[in-house]
Amino acid sequence: MRDPAALDAADPLARFRDRFLLPEGVIYLDGNSLGPLPRGVAERVAQAVCGEWGESLIRGWNRHGWGELPERVGDRIARLIGAAPGSVIAGDTTSVNLFKALAAATAMRPERAVILSDEGNFPTDLYMAEGLNGLTGRGALRLVAREHMTRAITEDVAVVMLTEVDYRTGHKLDMADITARAHAAGAVMLWDLAHSAGAFPVDLTASGAEFAVGCGYKYLNGGPGAPAFFYVRPDLAERVRPALSGWWGHAAPFAFDPAYRPAPGAGRFRVGTPPVLSLIALDAALDVFDDVDMGAVRAKSQALAELFVAEVARLARTEDLWLASPDDPDARGAQVSFRCSHGYAVTQALIAEGVIGDFRAPDLMRFGFAPLYLRFADAAEAARRLADILRHRRWDRPEHHARAAVT
Amino acid sequence: MRDPAALDAADPLARFRDRFLLPEGVIYLDGNSLGPLPRGVAERVAQAVCGEWGESLIRGWNRHGWGELPERVGDRIARLIGAAPGSVIAGDTTSVNLFKALAAATAMRPERAVILSDEGNFPTDLYMAEGLNGLTGRGALRLVAREHMTRAITEDVAVVMLTEVDYRTGHKLDMADITARAHAAGAVMLWDLAHSAGAFPVDLTASGAEFAVGCGYKYLNGGPGAPAFFYVRPDLAERVRPALSGWWGHAAPFAFDPAYRPAPGAGRFRVGTPPVLSLIALDAALDVFDDVDMGAVRAKSQALAELFVAEVARLARTEDLWLASPDDPDARGAQVSFRCSHGYAVTQALIAEGVIGDFRAPDLMRFGFAPLYLRFADAAEAARRLADILRHRRWDRPEHHARAAVT
Repeated sequence: MRDPAALDAADPLARFRDRFLLPEGVIYLDGNSLGPLPRGVAERVAQAVCGEWGESLIRGWNRHGWGELPERVGDRIARLIGAAPGSVIAGDTTSVNLFKALAAATAMRPERAVILSDEGNFPTDLYMAEGLNGLTGRGALRLVAREHMTRAITEDVAVVMLTEVDYRTGHKLDMADITARAHAAGAVMLWDLAHSAGAFPVDLTASGAEFAVGCGYKYLNGGPGAPAFFYVRPDLAERVRPALSGWWGHAAPFAFDPAYRPAPGAGRFRVGTPPVLSLIALDAALDVFDDVDMGAVRAKSQALAELFVAEVARLARTEDLWLASPDDPDARGAQVSFRCSHGYAVTQALIAEGVIGDFRAPDLMRFGFAPLYLRFADAAEAARRLADILRHRRWDRPEHHARAAVT
Repeated sequence: MRDPAALDAADPLARFRDRFLLPEGVIYLDGNSLGPLPRGVAERVAQAVCGEWGESLIRGWNRHGWGELPERVGDRIARLIGAAPGSVIAGDTTSVNLFKALAAATAMRPERAVILSDEGNFPTDLYMAEGLNGLTGRGALRLVAREHMTRAITEDVAVVMLTEVDYRTGHKLDMADITARAHAAGAVMLWDLAHSAGAFPVDLTASGAEFAVGCGYKYLNGGPGAPAFFYVRPDLAERVRPALSGWWGHAAPFAFDPAYRPAPGAGRFRVGTPPVLSLIALDAALDVFDDVDMGAVRAKSQALAELFVAEVARLARTEDLWLASPDDPDARGAQVSFRCSHGYAVTQALIAEGVIGDFRAPDLMRFGFAPLYLRFADAAEAARRLADILRHRRWDRPEHHARAAVT
């Protein structure tokens, strides 16, 4: 292993760590679930509460541009996912945005019934498709294993709905290739970028995908339950009619017209009043990315994960631990996962010793490598502690077996 | 007129004003649009950002009960609208909640096509119905004038969807009577309580209505774009299947089951990850109502509005101002509106002189009387300034005619 301290000293992203407020004594490998607090967010939120809402009251809509936050924040996210300005709006939850995208996408192929997805897709993606199909009485959800996806894109498929990075294994699909195959079969492509946005470079424009959604609270660090985002390809935005047609997606919300007339562009996919305080938190969090080279983010994320995997392999020396993620770093997102029959207890023991990852049933331990706040020394130390817990069976204590409500 | 100072001195709700942080020199009559900042909210939000998110990171879900916020906040709202504990969840926007309620309500009457509503209903209610009908290809939106509503509830109506208080005139419908008529005709009742919750006593349980939704940022003072709420009658909660079936409405969200299985009760109408920071702001704002007698709120709100209307009539002496709200205080919500051909400019002049109401095209000036922070002296002073602006034509200045983006 190369010396982690030397790697940190040579790291062009090292200075970004100072943009986060991390608790003392914690190595945080769960930014794939909830990003940490960026410096400056608390002040911006306090200013929004006291200075904007408290002082301006209703006048805040004009004085502080609250109404444009979904577009303004959307444009900042657009830059991170290779989307054109004006094509992304921030707001609602990933689940609600999935529904919007699926409803619009299926309406583009009325003669086809199938929504094709990954049987291991994040459940809410599948649930939302199920709900839409139940509501319309049309549509069938066809689920296949991720590795058989390309063959499953047949000419009866209306929409291919996939999450680029698998939430359990970190496996990353080839967005350009799959989108091209979907289009070749005449299907509409919808990407869930929950584990992509902010984690590595994404090029939605180059892919040609019609729709995408994603999450504000993972690698974008927008805070627990932060607003999600919605993308529609610019040439389509004017041609699709939103199913969730709310007043903030109307061409003239304050004309109070009784009939719906969609706003130009992606703005028509806005629905209700924007969540001003949480959009401001997300906006402030995005400052972190202001001068970040996403290529450098990808390179360091892969290097951190490789170091971690290699160190775990070198030190752990157990049969009860195997990499559940692809070996090839290019086939992974920013996370690696291990299977371990005592994974739950091991994760709890790790957390108790200051290394925060998480666990997904039945036996998966997940570790996220968000390189803006993680050091090579952190990855090495996390591997050392994991190996140590396994070698000395420090996971085998009653307190590490107790199940919490949410993991 | 009775002496406003004497009325304030005798007011049992006077002490509640101290629970708000109001800007100096402002008389705020727009709580029907955006409630002011309650004392304590800023501290709770700061604690949530730094203490909870910043320190606990992902562990916050267990340590701070973030996942139960929709139910916890929902129960606090339930108390204000006469709903049973467990029947209200907080989250999403009013528009999205309308969609959930409409989808569930129409599914209960598959043999009927008509959604009946008020032609003057708040536009987003109509737009969401339009969107749902477009998506399902079933359903027709029938709009009638508010005064003809009871006659229009015929036996082809699947769902009656009404806003209790008209956003323009403040006209208040008889919830019990209309719900009974809807049920007599075999229709499902859906109430929008945007201008009701926190403004006066509501008794959803007694009405027997199946569904209701409402707003967190008006009389509940949850902040700009605060989470909305959703009510389902307890006996129905288990029998309806949500169309927006998201993972947080699943019986076991962290089992990551590929098939949707609804949670017991109203919780199934949760969709995505709850907006933790804004739910905590709303939760803190609801402290204001902890020991409030809603009957006293209603009485004072009516007295404030009556004083304002009487004083305007006495002082304004103009032909260009007439009450657009019902004369009978029992037929109004907590707001009164006047028609005035120069209403926009008059409203701007009033705001410039420290009295914040708002304007709705073409000629409506709205004044909300939220009695927890308004004094009788405020109502009298606002009337005096309005009359003065009209008598001296102080509205007729260029700066009061310039239109802002959002009014």
